[in-house]
Amino acid sequence: MTDEKKLIAVIGGGECSAEEAELAEEVGREIARRGAILICGGLSGVMEAACKGARSEGGMTIGILPGDSRRQANSYVQIPIVTGMGYARNVIVVKSAQAVIAIGGSYGTLSEISHALQSNTPVIGLNTWSFSKNGKADKSIIRAKNAVGAVKKALSLAQK
Amino acid sequence: MTDEKKLIAVIGGGECSAEEAELAEEVGREIARRGAILICGGLSGVMEAACKGARSEGGMTIGILPGDSRRQANSYVQIPIVTGMGYARNVIVVKSAQAVIAIGGSYGTLSEISHALQSNTPVIGLNTWSFSKNGKADKSIIRAKNAVGAVKKALSLAQK
Amino acid sequence: MTDEKKLIAVIGGGECSAEEAELAEEVGREIARRGAILICGGLSGVMEAACKGARSEGGMTIGILPGDSRRQANSYVQIPIVTGMGYARNVIVVKSAQAVIAIGGSYGTLSEISHALQSNTPVIGLNTWSFSKNGKADKSIIRAKNAVGAVKKALSLAQK
Amino acid sequence: MTDEKKLIAVIGGGECSAEEAELAEEVGREIARRGAILICGGLSGVMEAACKGARSEGGMTIGILPGDSRRQANSYVQIPIVTGMGYARNVIVVKSAQAVIAIGGSYGTLSEISHALQSNTPVIGLNTWSFSKNGKADKSIIRAKNAVGAVKKALSLAQK
Repeated sequence: MTDEKKLIAVIGGGECSAEEAELAEEVGREIARRGAILICGGLSGVMEAACKGARSEGGMTIGILPGDSRRQANSYVQIPIVTGMGYARNVIVVKSAQAVIAIGGSYGTLSEISHALQSNTPVIGLNTWSFSKNGKADKSIIRAKNAVGAVKKALSLAQK
Repeated sequence: MTDEKKLIAVIGGGECSAEEAELAEEVGREIARRGAILICGGLSGVMEAACKGARSEGGMTIGILPGDSRRQANSYVQIPIVTGMGYARNVIVVKSAQAVIAIGGSYGTLSEISHALQSNTPVIGLNTWSFSKNGKADKSIIRAKNAVGAVKKALSLAQK
Repeated sequence: MTDEKKLIAVIGGGECSAEEAELAEEVGREIARRGAILICGGLSGVMEAACKGARSEGGMTIGILPGDSRRQANSYVQIPIVTGMGYARNVIVVKSAQAVIAIGGSYGTLSEISHALQSNTPVIGLNTWSFSKNGKADKSIIRAKNAVGAVKKALSLAQK
Repeated sequence: MTDEKKLIAVIGGGECSAEEAELAEEVGREIARRGAILICGGLSGVMEAACKGARSEGGMTIGILPGDSRRQANSYVQIPIVTGMGYARNVIVVKSAQAVIAIGGSYGTLSEISHALQSNTPVIGLNTWSFSKNGKADKSIIRAKNAVGAVKKALSLAQK
């Protein structure tokens, strides 16, 4: 590939709290400031807030849409990719990213975290899921304290 | 649809312990004894053990394969469905089932649990993942103590 | 895999003429009479007529559904596979089959014929598409004169 | 969405003649000159030549990859989208585009033309497939005589 801009995914709920939206917007801004490209599921909530942040800093935003129309994208998606594949598009969001930042989220976000870890893609967590098996905590999600810390970790761990 | 046989998914690792394999085989047998159809990812480990159990009782087994060839299926899959879609096939396994039984498992299994909960499909857990968000445990997985109990719960909760 | 029942796909329009429906129903009957399993897109038109024929002879029918609900299947589908992937499910129909019988059809059927030929799966045609490139006719579709002839060819060419 | 750059797909064989490669490169250049974004399957042949042309004029190139790694992309893809879904990714290429330009191609290209027509996306053809049903030619592909004409037609017909 010609350019070496990194693709960082931001995942989280299509509905989110004001606090999560603020966090996502700051994550989006920081991704853009550091010259990376934001990829997400292209809808509302955390996805929209992150895209808004990235665009405010002149960054590029890609939305991998579940439905059949590019008009499903939030207003801050620059490049809508139309899959028509419903939730199976979650796999594409995380496979395309070199690192994933998870903010809050519901079961869709949990599926994306799982698919990322299954593909050995680094996952940075901000107030998101924890999980354990047979009483033993899984430590694969790298925890961050704030937006800037999350983006720094994502970029330093981003896979080639 | 003509018949009213229920489809129950068994999900779990492609590699598993001897104990998990025994549990999966008993789950497979019980699904067949109760006249339901077993659907799974079609590969080895928990999937193969469950199919073996179901076939030993004359049950029907369906494998939703990630690869491009029907020969990828384990020896106990009767109907191989070839997707060529890699891990995105996980979504099809749980969407097609009316209830899901999770046995142990790794991140692939966690993704299937998440997709099932996202689709409001009941998930019965046997020694599998637990998860929490911001310190609050999620109780959506219905825990079972043994194979027979898991299948009973799955069938009583199976969606139309 | 345990059993050696062959999977034969029947593809064609979700809307079809009375003549095409009659042909599809006869193809379905013949597939069942010869002990093969019918796989299709699970919806109306040619798919429904073929399933009706197969069921009338006690055959097994599988429907690979584009939507999110098993209730989308026509009344003669015995095993609904729910993909939620829209037209991308066309790929699964033909990849899962060991031979494909195309009856009439529109662009969706043409996409299935193409995916089958791309995967080296034999395609038998009954009053369906023809195509050529730069004026040179492509002869990959094997033409049949009637339902019985189509099923005979499909079974003799069915891939392992 | 924020920007109004149009997405134009270029589809064609992963292997192609020198003449087709030259045509594809000129199509890519013209897409870039007119300020549109090029989307394709991201591999070699026609896809690579088109990306090369677009990049030579400073245009943006997106590759929707069938495999599991971004390294599968040709050297001129700027934004690799990793699907891991094999040929099912063909659906995404054409669904994401507002118009499609087909150059030569084999069965994969024919499947993409079919999926595009099924979605009512305009298809412009340069020395590519023709098809007919029951002896009646299908006129849905809009024929162009050269690269510049193809891109002009694609942009004027591009869907919102």
